[in-house]
Amino acid sequence: MKTIRDPIHGQIRLEETILKIIDTPQFQRLRRIKQLGFANLVYPGANHTRFEHSLGVMHIASKLTDNLEIVVAALLHDIGHPPFSHSSERIVKKYLRYEHEDVKRIIDGELKDVLKEYGFSLNKISKHIRFNPIISGEIDTDRMDYLVRDSYYTGVAYGVFDVERLIDKTYFDGKRLIIESGGLKAAESLLISRYMMYPTVYYHHVCRIARKMYEKALEFLINEGFDAKNLLHMDDFDVVSLMRNSNCAKEMIELIDSRKLFKRAIYVGRDRVDLKEITRINEERIEEEIAGEVGIEAKYVIVDVQPIEEVKEFNALVDVDGELVKLEEVSPLIKALKLAEMENWRLGVYTKREYVEKVGKIASKLLNLDKIPKQKTLDEIS
Amino acid sequence: MKTIRDPIHGQIRLEETILKIIDTPQFQRLRRIKQLGFANLVYPGANHTRFEHSLGVMHIASKLTDNLEIVVAALLHDIGHPPFSHSSERIVKKYLRYEHEDVKRIIDGELKDVLKEYGFSLNKISKHIRFNPIISGEIDTDRMDYLVRDSYYTGVAYGVFDVERLIDKTYFDGKRLIIESGGLKAAESLLISRYMMYPTVYYHHVCRIARKMYEKALEFLINEGFDAKNLLHMDDFDVVSLMRNSNCAKEMIELIDSRKLFKRAIYVGRDRVDLKEITRINEERIEEEIAGEVGIEAKYVIVDVQPIEEVKEFNALVDVDGELVKLEEVSPLIKALKLAEMENWRLGVYTKREYVEKVGKIASKLLNLDKIPKQKTLDEIS
Amino acid sequence: MKTIRDPIHGQIRLEETILKIIDTPQFQRLRRIKQLGFANLVYPGANHTRFEHSLGVMHIASKLTDNLEIVVAALLHDIGHPPFSHSSERIVKKYLRYEHEDVKRIIDGELKDVLKEYGFSLNKISKHIRFNPIISGEIDTDRMDYLVRDSYYTGVAYGVFDVERLIDKTYFDGKRLIIESGGLKAAESLLISRYMMYPTVYYHHVCRIARKMYEKALEFLINEGFDAKNLLHMDDFDVVSLMRNSNCAKEMIELIDSRKLFKRAIYVGRDRVDLKEITRINEERIEEEIAGEVGIEAKYVIVDVQPIEEVKEFNALVDVDGELVKLEEVSPLIKALKLAEMENWRLGVYTKREYVEKVGKIASKLLNLDKIPKQKTLDEIS
Amino acid sequence: MKTIRDPIHGQIRLEETILKIIDTPQFQRLRRIKQLGFANLVYPGANHTRFEHSLGVMHIASKLTDNLEIVVAALLHDIGHPPFSHSSERIVKKYLRYEHEDVKRIIDGELKDVLKEYGFSLNKISKHIRFNPIISGEIDTDRMDYLVRDSYYTGVAYGVFDVERLIDKTYFDGKRLIIESGGLKAAESLLISRYMMYPTVYYHHVCRIARKMYEKALEFLINEGFDAKNLLHMDDFDVVSLMRNSNCAKEMIELIDSRKLFKRAIYVGRDRVDLKEITRINEERIEEEIAGEVGIEAKYVIVDVQPIEEVKEFNALVDVDGELVKLEEVSPLIKALKLAEMENWRLGVYTKREYVEKVGKIASKLLNLDKIPKQKTLDEIS
Repeated sequence: MKTIRDPIHGQIRLEETILKIIDTPQFQRLRRIKQLGFANLVYPGANHTRFEHSLGVMHIASKLTDNLEIVVAALLHDIGHPPFSHSSERIVKKYLRYEHEDVKRIIDGELKDVLKEYGFSLNKISKHIRFNPIISGEIDTDRMDYLVRDSYYTGVAYGVFDVERLIDKTYFDGKRLIIESGGLKAAESLLISRYMMYPTVYYHHVCRIARKMYEKALEFLINEGFDAKNLLHMDDFDVVSLMRNSNCAKEMIELIDSRKLFKRAIYVGRDRVDLKEITRINEERIEEEIAGEVGIEAKYVIVDVQPIEEVKEFNALVDVDGELVKLEEVSPLIKALKLAEMENWRLGVYTKREYVEKVGKIASKLLNLDKIPKQKTLDEIS
Repeated sequence: MKTIRDPIHGQIRLEETILKIIDTPQFQRLRRIKQLGFANLVYPGANHTRFEHSLGVMHIASKLTDNLEIVVAALLHDIGHPPFSHSSERIVKKYLRYEHEDVKRIIDGELKDVLKEYGFSLNKISKHIRFNPIISGEIDTDRMDYLVRDSYYTGVAYGVFDVERLIDKTYFDGKRLIIESGGLKAAESLLISRYMMYPTVYYHHVCRIARKMYEKALEFLINEGFDAKNLLHMDDFDVVSLMRNSNCAKEMIELIDSRKLFKRAIYVGRDRVDLKEITRINEERIEEEIAGEVGIEAKYVIVDVQPIEEVKEFNALVDVDGELVKLEEVSPLIKALKLAEMENWRLGVYTKREYVEKVGKIASKLLNLDKIPKQKTLDEIS
Repeated sequence: MKTIRDPIHGQIRLEETILKIIDTPQFQRLRRIKQLGFANLVYPGANHTRFEHSLGVMHIASKLTDNLEIVVAALLHDIGHPPFSHSSERIVKKYLRYEHEDVKRIIDGELKDVLKEYGFSLNKISKHIRFNPIISGEIDTDRMDYLVRDSYYTGVAYGVFDVERLIDKTYFDGKRLIIESGGLKAAESLLISRYMMYPTVYYHHVCRIARKMYEKALEFLINEGFDAKNLLHMDDFDVVSLMRNSNCAKEMIELIDSRKLFKRAIYVGRDRVDLKEITRINEERIEEEIAGEVGIEAKYVIVDVQPIEEVKEFNALVDVDGELVKLEEVSPLIKALKLAEMENWRLGVYTKREYVEKVGKIASKLLNLDKIPKQKTLDEIS
Repeated sequence: MKTIRDPIHGQIRLEETILKIIDTPQFQRLRRIKQLGFANLVYPGANHTRFEHSLGVMHIASKLTDNLEIVVAALLHDIGHPPFSHSSERIVKKYLRYEHEDVKRIIDGELKDVLKEYGFSLNKISKHIRFNPIISGEIDTDRMDYLVRDSYYTGVAYGVFDVERLIDKTYFDGKRLIIESGGLKAAESLLISRYMMYPTVYYHHVCRIARKMYEKALEFLINEGFDAKNLLHMDDFDVVSLMRNSNCAKEMIELIDSRKLFKRAIYVGRDRVDLKEITRINEERIEEEIAGEVGIEAKYVIVDVQPIEEVKEFNALVDVDGELVKLEEVSPLIKALKLAEMENWRLGVYTKREYVEKVGKIASKLLNLDKIPKQKTLDEIS
């Protein structure tokens, strides 16, 4: 049996079936898709990929179940990720109505053959990826791996919860993943990591800005005739190369490459906006309006209404003396986190450094922010 | 300049004054006082001492100030700890009205001479230990060190907050220790560690039981004529040896040594009691009453009303664009933690395994617990 | 002062000059050049870049000297690296007579302007990079950083020597970097790391094979008219994209991308060859001869005569009671390592899996290996 | 199944039999025996105990075999250690002809009953402890645990070899522990750790001095009538308490407690002595001679001829393509280490600071050292 060295889990063992799947070009593509998109612009160590994360999730899953079908599904749960992971997500959703869990649509070639050869049903694999609690539940192997892994490569210690203990104190009853009462603190710990990692890493404003700039460049490509379907089989290299060689996206990718990123003209929390109203706005139209009033090209204005993440983890089940109770019911901390999560939400308007002041004023007016926000001119690196 | 190797901070440099202080028998005594008393009965790695903790606090303090007087005070902040640290605390308070910060009362011999030789005022050192925000404030060097250190030796990852970043983003304005806004997440992290460490380590029921058994043994010694004053200059070896050679405390220390600990007859949270009333009871009298009704010796019953810890950290000051704001005002998580802390409180009644059931019933009645608690018979090791 | 979070050194502080240099497109290019070329094909975590390594070296240098010129040189020591770091080295040497320390030839644009603005002489920076013992000596900051960093990202613990202690116990006397006797064990530790990392990471056969395949693809490009000079300003993305879009290199990069790598037909140590003779052979001619005799295209045969690394570290100076002595003279271990290093040398001949047997036989004959080597058919992943 | 939290191995699972053994007073005694004797005088974190080490060895053994008898033997392999571990070894050997592997002689009470109840033969357990390669072989679980554990608590990174990989790549064929070729580097790493830990920790001169002073104090006790047999059932507390309350050993334990340790009057390597001759001298007689000539009490002179450790690890077996070869034959590094090990040997003569010069001169003459050694007056802490 072969083993792969992983900085998070140590030795990961690969049995024959798993090895065969890994050795396909379709799976190898994940080596060239960064796990955290452009987060390396803030945390220079964050160059890790979907490949190693997928191995990690498979590894944890294999500790929770002997069902090889589930383990294979765990390995393949991110096979559908487009370049730069979540950074391309909005575009593939918009133009292809595609989500990365939609693996049936993307699995082909050698990978499809290997799965067939070993008797796996694509339908079942796909269902596991979407609904199996081991892979996609309240507290699942995906989360267990990425929180620690992202924390390792960013150098942010917040995410170092106690995976080993959590795995040890969690069992799969065939239908649900259940936390034993001895694992309660480890589960709380995971949720705290989540709470800490979102604002400092995943939603760090510099990461958001780079991601939105990239999204914009992608739209330019599509507007000039690039077929979004191609994204599903491309890697980070392909899309960067495409942008560098295009007329429309070239400027944007160069700004990203040289880290001449847009700055924040507006950056406010939910206390400054009507949340219901703001989530319904058409960002592109507002971008055009702002640009029009300021008198600059629309491509230099980005309106970023952060999505409101649903936090499923609070519903994880805990086994308290044989009774199954929701995590948030046994843990006052968790109840508190649920409220606190909302405080991390931000509305941002980003533009080139030279337009920051003007764009800030106009955007503030158009978005009905009651007063001009205190602008942080300092764009901290971390 | 000499250096000492510390598993937490790496190389700790010792300049001449510091080295002279460390080299006194009074300071060396701290090598033989366990930082966490009897926690090694639950976490076998928790054998670390006040000595290394004191070096750690000195080390962090020296990064926050150049004032040698404060650094020396940081080094000496725990010089007054009696054997087994907090485990002897209640007894020295009760019989000597002494608290371990009361260093003037205890500093003597060579240590006193060295301090005098280098021109330090005992009065000022003592004041720093009690009131200097670097040593004893909302978020101080004492806390910064012990949370990480205790976590390292217990093997509990919860406490691994980001000390280096916190130190980096904290400044001392001469009067107060202030957290820069870039250090907010690290400060939150420290408070979460605190929240996690209390129930899993500091207030783990097995640690509480061993500690209360030891306290009882101390009382037996005092009742038989041992002068509590001696405790202030003793180390763990002295007090264990004294108990082993006494008639009264011998049984108790043997039970602790062989880990034949009392079990929980009652173990309930604040929802089961009238908190105001319960904190006013006389534990010894209740112990006698329970023992009387059950028909056993009073020494086999322990009533443990956990103290309610004041959590000062919530008032730590954060510098938000030049304005000083309380931590709990900028952090919704912290506000939440304040409430959640209360959930950790416990009332326990402990006795020998064979009396658990009877003691549980009687205690429940005498303490007005509305119904007999579900007894966890399993006494988990961790 | 800004700080960057680094998983190895924690918080790295960046003062204004340093920050200005980092913010140029020329320096930002390093973000897109993998530190270890294709090592991620064996160690999936090895995706780190010259960017973070350069920050690390600057960070260590700033602890050893206050001379800003040297610190800037440390930051820029790898600015000349072509795509995939050492993997392009042989080609740029062959076609451009260029080595990556040759920074004067490559520094231009905004970076050149910033250096000028702050009054730095390109000549002096260049000299420091080549000759300053802090940057390029027996035991230098380059080595100190990469051994730990490479070990962190590969997950191979071997490299974890005690950098902090070594830095602490090393001083720069203006001309030389000298190890204090208290740092001897840490220096030994660094050399052991080096000894362990070479065969398991840097010279792992799979890394060698991928690198030689990439080199071959580069040659194909050049043969079809690509000007090697361009390499100096390209990043990993550029060169991969170029290969994917060429006729000649497309097959090779696809084999690398899908990890369908060549296998070892020959893989022997120095006991099997005449070392003097073997290092003088013309690899390309032998490749053609082998291919000719087997009857396959020459592009499917790679002859890899590993270079013999000079190990300068053994000459590092140790301060023993005021006398400067060579490291290998005070340390019997080091003397031993020097001999053992030679054992790591390998001669490899690689080809497609289907030609392994034939190529092995012919190559063995042509290279005068006395008998057909025991072929390891197992191509272990780690 | 209960679990114990261990900082080295994470969660250690304890099945019923194991738990029953641990819960006996005889095994609990190990909690109060420091693993590294007086090493905490140099490395303040080194307070770990034989208890946790024993759990660690049991844990590793259980990964290498399913044979419960062997696992139990692994757990009990150090049950015979007298107070302060190896520090009492010379005395128990000298007066009792006892070695700590001699467990049959020491297992009694509840522990004996539990073993009997579960059907274990003391004879077989004893044999495993002495001869089973899993517990006491060339590369065994004892070594695997203590090198990493000692390194963790001292904060010395040298010992961090790759245990997990080594365990993974080692198999027990029923008679021998064999290293797979994929585990070669990990095995080399273990031997390097060993080589590094000896001089910096185990044989650090301050540790040696404290140990020899303690040995001397033990001899004083025995000379005054203390029966050495008692040592076998005592813990660190007992022996310290005994010394503090004796006339003869009181001064010595106070010197140790207050870290007023003897200094080196002589400290030379094997190049300064005739090794054969020196290992045959009678240390006590020489001590008396030196003291006599200097005119001080013999108790103030310690002659320390370090034992020459046999390094069995070099004979460990490696499985190279099915053939079993000795480790030193496949690894040139290991061959080199074998020679280098000898360089660590030291002859020391220690005395009170005020006698250092005189004792140095006389000892040098009496021990036939050709010239007066350069005395390092600096007694570095680490």
